Amino acid sequence: MSSDVTALYPAGRLRVVADAVRKAGLGALLLTPGPDLRYVTGYDAKQLERLTCLAIPAEGDPFLVVPLLELPAAQASPAGGLGVEMLTWGETTDPFGMVKDRLGPVESVGLSDRMWALNVFRFRDAFPRTEQVLASAVLSRLRMRKSAAEVHALREAGAAIDRVHARVPEWLKPGLTERAVGARIAEAILAEGHAQVDFVIVGSGPNAASPHHEVSDRVLLDGDVVVVDIGGTMPSGYCSDCTRTYAIGTPPAEFVTYYEVLHQAQQAACEAARPGVSAESVDYAAREIIAAAGYGEWFVHRTGHGIGLESHEDPYIVAGNGTKLEPGMAFSVEPGIYPGPHGARIEDIVVCTETGYERLNNAARELVIV
Amino acid sequence: MSSDVTALYPAGRLRVVADAVRKAGLGALLLTPGPDLRYVTGYDAKQLERLTCLAIPAEGDPFLVVPLLELPAAQASPAGGLGVEMLTWGETTDPFGMVKDRLGPVESVGLSDRMWALNVFRFRDAFPRTEQVLASAVLSRLRMRKSAAEVHALREAGAAIDRVHARVPEWLKPGLTERAVGARIAEAILAEGHAQVDFVIVGSGPNAASPHHEVSDRVLLDGDVVVVDIGGTMPSGYCSDCTRTYAIGTPPAEFVTYYEVLHQAQQAACEAARPGVSAESVDYAAREIIAAAGYGEWFVHRTGHGIGLESHEDPYIVAGNGTKLEPGMAFSVEPGIYPGPHGARIEDIVVCTETGYERLNNAARELVIV
Repeated sequence: MSSDVTALYPAGRLRVVADAVRKAGLGALLLTPGPDLRYVTGYDAKQLERLTCLAIPAEGDPFLVVPLLELPAAQASPAGGLGVEMLTWGETTDPFGMVKDRLGPVESVGLSDRMWALNVFRFRDAFPRTEQVLASAVLSRLRMRKSAAEVHALREAGAAIDRVHARVPEWLKPGLTERAVGARIAEAILAEGHAQVDFVIVGSGPNAASPHHEVSDRVLLDGDVVVVDIGGTMPSGYCSDCTRTYAIGTPPAEFVTYYEVLHQAQQAACEAARPGVSAESVDYAAREIIAAAGYGEWFVHRTGHGIGLESHEDPYIVAGNGTKLEPGMAFSVEPGIYPGPHGARIEDIVVCTETGYERLNNAARELVIV
Repeated sequence: MSSDVTALYPAGRLRVVADAVRKAGLGALLLTPGPDLRYVTGYDAKQLERLTCLAIPAEGDPFLVVPLLELPAAQASPAGGLGVEMLTWGETTDPFGMVKDRLGPVESVGLSDRMWALNVFRFRDAFPRTEQVLASAVLSRLRMRKSAAEVHALREAGAAIDRVHARVPEWLKPGLTERAVGARIAEAILAEGHAQVDFVIVGSGPNAASPHHEVSDRVLLDGDVVVVDIGGTMPSGYCSDCTRTYAIGTPPAEFVTYYEVLHQAQQAACEAARPGVSAESVDYAAREIIAAAGYGEWFVHRTGHGIGLESHEDPYIVAGNGTKLEPGMAFSVEPGIYPGPHGARIEDIVVCTETGYERLNNAARELVIV
């Protein structure tokens, strides 16, 4: 069953957010197109130079300022069913003034974290005595704890990217370039149900040791290990992200040794996840095992990031993040070891449950030799 | 010949920009991933939660703060050839503090227009006494006037989207949905040389009267008119954007009448473009003809927008924009008439030349009946 938009973006969320705005002591949230606006209303609007802005005041009714040209799209979106008043503006109106006039005086506003500086500064000029803070001060706590419908949407995303990984071995043939393999993966990401390809990393041979390598014209060789880290956005708005490391033919003996360490570390980090433990303790669980085996200096990145309407969002699984896990929090667990001239990473999306954790990716984590 | 990256993103541009920063009286520009960073360095970095930032001080050498994970990508990009020092940061460092410490005290900084509020506020906190303005205060004047290499890249983009339009008639068959036609167009946008699909509008029947309609499940019918407005980004970074309106079988008589008015208006607006005239006068040239024919109330949007590394950028061809055209300025000329239950738009990208204008789209503008 595919995700139900009314369950994913319930009409009652707008009231929950307005309550949170009031409790945070802010005057209003001002949300431009992006994940915050989509979370609150279901409206997947494009960020463009013409201002679209949902204002959610602490007191009074929310309203959406929308370019006249975008009104049909806004009305056709889930936002059209929320009973939010839509105020349109034409090509020569000042929409920032419209927001100001309608909102009245406010001491502070929370702006969506991805709002462009272009709009941040125009709001600053329209409300020169109003303090600007990030909307995440209100929304991060809400967005981190996924509802059952959101977990369902993430589970669908996980299953879709698992189906892509199931097909990856057939494309990892000596003689093909990373770029050619990446193109097939991108097609498969769409064919398996995503609406959008977000990233395709095919790091072969020495490129496996560069965690954010994307693709290159390097030709795959027998004996290569290949890190394949891929993800997309589903029609629901929710993202997938999964990494597996493959070997073409017999890998180097040292690789086999540290891959097994990595496999254990990834398992230990997943098992560390449960309500009440800190995000950083999950990072530590993976790091401890890798360090004990002597590979600590080669684990050069955090263990993971939250995921939902964004590929990367709160909570980050990193030293220094004391956020306590709660049921519904979803994040990647993706330790890596990159000693060069090869490297490995294993990544699953994990959800904190009432009693522990659930993995949303289930492709085999044992080394796949193709 | 495809665009040459060293001609498109010349190494000398960084010095030109630094001179402009000094002349504008700013302390520095701070550019995060997006079109401004790409314009200055050729580096097509992704905007992510980890800070990548090019600082261009008015005095002293520019430097790039980059996450350790992204260093290989930054070095492999054209930015790697500019001799800019790259300062890396690990997962638990404060990169905003690194920018501050290296830059020293500055009274004002220009932030890239698309910088996320997330970073705007972190820079505000790192430099609490520094005035923040938009980088476009410096960069817009430079980016508006395209170099010969940039015009060449836009010409390639125009030719690529013209090849897609040449194939559109074969897909406009009664019985297909707008969505199905849109999917074929999206495939063709990539097949004809774009790196990315930016938008696909297939507005059939009554949807032709909604200028920003995208696609729907409406089935094409005999007698429909269909507005097809499509664009993508080329590997060079430069964008295409072209609209044609098609008729499936015999269109309504009234449509034929106003389509001819529109055709004349689009031609007149193109002919109005030359060095020294204002952007708004090009808008006026189209609007005057449409209004004189009695359709003024149905031309509900501006005549156009600049185009380059962004689909929509300065100069906007709109009432109130007194910017004087200069050779190298590139923009869309796309009047429309939308009386309902149908509508029409004709759009070409036009470049202001030394003596007049050059169209970068050359598909027939006469009504195509399929």
